[in-house]
Amino acid sequence: MSNPSTVVLLSGGLDSTTLLYYVKSIEDGPVAISFRYGQLHSKEVEAAAKTCAFLQVPHKIINLDIGALLKGSALTDPLVPVPQGHYEDSTMRQTVVPNRNMILLSIAAAWAISIKARKVAYAAHAGDHAIYPDCRPEFLDKVTEAVVVGNSWDLDNPIPLRVVAPFIKLTKTDILRLGVNLGVDYRLTWTCYKGEVHPCGRCGACNERAEAFEHLGMKDPLMEVSV
Amino acid sequence: MSNPSTVVLLSGGLDSTTLLYYVKSIEDGPVAISFRYGQLHSKEVEAAAKTCAFLQVPHKIINLDIGALLKGSALTDPLVPVPQGHYEDSTMRQTVVPNRNMILLSIAAAWAISIKARKVAYAAHAGDHAIYPDCRPEFLDKVTEAVVVGNSWDLDNPIPLRVVAPFIKLTKTDILRLGVNLGVDYRLTWTCYKGEVHPCGRCGACNERAEAFEHLGMKDPLMEVSV
Repeated sequence: MSNPSTVVLLSGGLDSTTLLYYVKSIEDGPVAISFRYGQLHSKEVEAAAKTCAFLQVPHKIINLDIGALLKGSALTDPLVPVPQGHYEDSTMRQTVVPNRNMILLSIAAAWAISIKARKVAYAAHAGDHAIYPDCRPEFLDKVTEAVVVGNSWDLDNPIPLRVVAPFIKLTKTDILRLGVNLGVDYRLTWTCYKGEVHPCGRCGACNERAEAFEHLGMKDPLMEVSV
Repeated sequence: MSNPSTVVLLSGGLDSTTLLYYVKSIEDGPVAISFRYGQLHSKEVEAAAKTCAFLQVPHKIINLDIGALLKGSALTDPLVPVPQGHYEDSTMRQTVVPNRNMILLSIAAAWAISIKARKVAYAAHAGDHAIYPDCRPEFLDKVTEAVVVGNSWDLDNPIPLRVVAPFIKLTKTDILRLGVNLGVDYRLTWTCYKGEVHPCGRCGACNERAEAFEHLGMKDPLMEVSV
């Protein structure tokens, strides 16, 4: 078997799950990596594992004992309430985990180098840019440069590794449309910031997901299950 | 008390221990961070904890469950023998852990952002450049850019955080000379790639350390203890 092509960062949410289906549809041998970094619940990671099992994609789950460093984010600090409202509101800044994507991409890149994969892909999309600096195109370039420079013996002959974000110009509705065409099983995803039995339907992540399904005139299968 | 000034990456070896003493000598309130990332032994991390206790520097030890991703390095893979010989030989490339410094610096940067420290410091030095791409000045610039771009809401008003390597132009002998002047207790350091009771005296790291002490006409207190 040839080397894996791409290491896909898979949170288990709508975007990254669609990304994994997309990469698998255009190239052989993607692998996926998920992280437990102190999130208040593990429902997304469990969803990621289910999707990988369904797609027969090799999957690593990495435990990062960094929650204690990341006080102040609603995603890792139980003292900070999960904000409700629209995803792009300034209140959503409370969901920022400092330097998260750089940490996760750095580890994914280590694995990629180790198994000779040529790409690390993550699902940053256009809706993220306003609130997450580490989802912007500028960051993508900078993090790629750091990985290449940091791992090339000879800078005139750099390692062939790139960090890519194929959805960086897409809206969540675009991603969902693509995913529906690819046959993504969205029952095996988790988006809600809270880790209850059913999605809360009120947090920014739930609202953004619901909008995308509405735009396509579809029902979210995860919400149907919860009725 | 004011915010911590600098997050120091502290492996517990000669270089980073000297760096912590150095930073503490020129500014108030450094803090230190060490990692267990699948090294075959934990003697360096234990040394780091002892130095921080002695200096009364706040210290975090972070467990990173990434050893399984990093096959092929003598520092994390028990199937790869620890190379003997001189530190700058090409055999020392077997001690490279893919993307290690970017992973560790990314996490240190997350902590720095969280506690409003303005610098992340690590002990890359001139002797490292030949074999570790992630100890070169070019990498330092790239990783700083990635952190700043990835965490600044407004790129016209970037966050005041830099990754620095004060020893990047120094040899190990220079570092040791500085450390001796600063009163570093080198008994509380560990350098050997092996984790036995006493340093092996034969691996590249031991040889490089011994050379530095020889250059200064000094005895390594760690070797005296082992006699």
